[in-house]
Amino acid sequence: MRSRLVLWPLLALVLVGATVVPRQEPIRPIEPVVVTDPALVELGKQLYFDPRLSRSGFISCNSCHNLSLGGSDNLVSSIGHKWQQGPINSPTVLNSSFNIAQFWDGRAADLAEQAEGPIANPAEMAFTHELAVGVVATIPGYVAAFEQAFGPGPIDIARVTKAIAAFEETLVTPNARFDRWLLGDDAALSGEELAGYQVFRTSGCTTCHNGPAAGASSFQKMGLVEPYRTENPSQGRIAVTGEEVDRFRFKTPTLRNVELTYPYFHDGAAGTLTEAVDVMGRLQLGRRFSKKESAQVVAFLRTLTGDQPSFVLPQLPPSSDATPRPQPFD
Amino acid sequence: MRSRLVLWPLLALVLVGATVVPRQEPIRPIEPVVVTDPALVELGKQLYFDPRLSRSGFISCNSCHNLSLGGSDNLVSSIGHKWQQGPINSPTVLNSSFNIAQFWDGRAADLAEQAEGPIANPAEMAFTHELAVGVVATIPGYVAAFEQAFGPGPIDIARVTKAIAAFEETLVTPNARFDRWLLGDDAALSGEELAGYQVFRTSGCTTCHNGPAAGASSFQKMGLVEPYRTENPSQGRIAVTGEEVDRFRFKTPTLRNVELTYPYFHDGAAGTLTEAVDVMGRLQLGRRFSKKESAQVVAFLRTLTGDQPSFVLPQLPPSSDATPRPQPFD
Repeated sequence: MRSRLVLWPLLALVLVGATVVPRQEPIRPIEPVVVTDPALVELGKQLYFDPRLSRSGFISCNSCHNLSLGGSDNLVSSIGHKWQQGPINSPTVLNSSFNIAQFWDGRAADLAEQAEGPIANPAEMAFTHELAVGVVATIPGYVAAFEQAFGPGPIDIARVTKAIAAFEETLVTPNARFDRWLLGDDAALSGEELAGYQVFRTSGCTTCHNGPAAGASSFQKMGLVEPYRTENPSQGRIAVTGEEVDRFRFKTPTLRNVELTYPYFHDGAAGTLTEAVDVMGRLQLGRRFSKKESAQVVAFLRTLTGDQPSFVLPQLPPSSDATPRPQPFD
Repeated sequence: MRSRLVLWPLLALVLVGATVVPRQEPIRPIEPVVVTDPALVELGKQLYFDPRLSRSGFISCNSCHNLSLGGSDNLVSSIGHKWQQGPINSPTVLNSSFNIAQFWDGRAADLAEQAEGPIANPAEMAFTHELAVGVVATIPGYVAAFEQAFGPGPIDIARVTKAIAAFEETLVTPNARFDRWLLGDDAALSGEELAGYQVFRTSGCTTCHNGPAAGASSFQKMGLVEPYRTENPSQGRIAVTGEEVDRFRFKTPTLRNVELTYPYFHDGAAGTLTEAVDVMGRLQLGRRFSKKESAQVVAFLRTLTGDQPSFVLPQLPPSSDATPRPQPFD
């Protein structure tokens, strides 16, 4: 699905004979999405915003991956069912289709598999797949929308998460100033920002933060040169592979829209970009950035904010008399 | 502000020499809103969706008055800070500018005064006005937007709530099928729906459910003919007036979009329209509707669903390094 989505604009460039060749840099431009299945995406958008996928009727995908807030919740760790504290910082949903895998430890292969997780996690939406499907299947507006998107057949969790994933695949953020610079617009970056990118690139940040998402393409050890000290108990990818080498390896987060997705790191411990740049320099690269270099890198990072997804707030189809009611307090 | 908003369309009708005179019925059509101050409304929309007005950084106006769900949360009572259970059902924000006063007991005179309440209520958003203003005033995007909307001068809670109220005044729902019928379109209602309206009107429902909001214009005793039994401790308007006559008097809710705003009554005890119609008939009118009459009234009530507010999901300006961070778990 991903490749189908991104190929169209490239193809269009070729067809019109455009000669724009992006600068050869480790970070690649993000292409706008071309929606090929609008009915599926529209259904997924509704489900993404629907708190009835949670036991309480209060928590939706958008609660922790808030599309008004850069696809994150801007909290150190999220709030789940009955105000339980989440174990890890919620990563942004923006550009998540570029991720090598989903979750910080990569335990889900793709967006549809990821979407299964929070619905049934007792500390998050605290529902079950069966109950969530039972709610959706009693809402006439959803029954019609699923039939339009998938054709005949019963609603099941696979269709629910496939629709949510199809919507999430549209949540890319092209047209960042850095992308415009990559595509040849010399005036898109200031001298300060360009200097910041040179510090970023020559210091080795692009070893991990590369590709269209400026990250998200590999698992890396947090605390490579110096150990990272945190009270967060997450052990990273070892939870998936069982391999000791994967202890404290996490998916490198995307730097796209990083100005919007504070606080930073899997434990949300860095509240500002300045702090995050300092910690990354010391712990991953063995380098102390000067105050001037740090300010330059932060200025560069702010050029990675792209066009945010823009759409009309979805209206959700009302429950019927047969729809099970939420149970927030039992 | 209210009158300015509604007069324009009427004036327009006069100016073009239109001769549409609504049918003379106790329920009046809703006029579309003409926005006279788009900068103020846009700012109010951002604040309405911004969870940073709460101590936790998780609860916004839209959490309990969800504009994807008919301006309500579809819960018996709402979820507040640290998952506290609200004392009363959250009324819809849709058409709330028509309300005689705000809250079930009318303790706020207008929408701006209402908006002050939940921000500082320890069981709801659990913030203070000072802290909320302190957050907003450190966000550069808001500083610019307030200056654009209000001109120079400090941000204070009065400006915050005035902006939110200006947005809420736009949340009217014209063009319901019942409105089209009121305006002369005989085909807008089915025979069943029209029969339902006749039952509704001749039974006396319009004594309280009248005007453009089909309610919201008076305080009435819940349990007029037969007492209403509930475990909800709210005593209604007596909390405001101290007058014994106001015990168990509540603001009559609007019936606009009632198909979307379940569950019903101040205690949220009626889960379906059928149940609500039955209870209202017996307790307020001393009347047991037949199954046929009840189905007709419910069919009529569903014709009160109007055009839902349609707007692009707002993007919220990011916090600065100086912005105090949310405290969800302390």
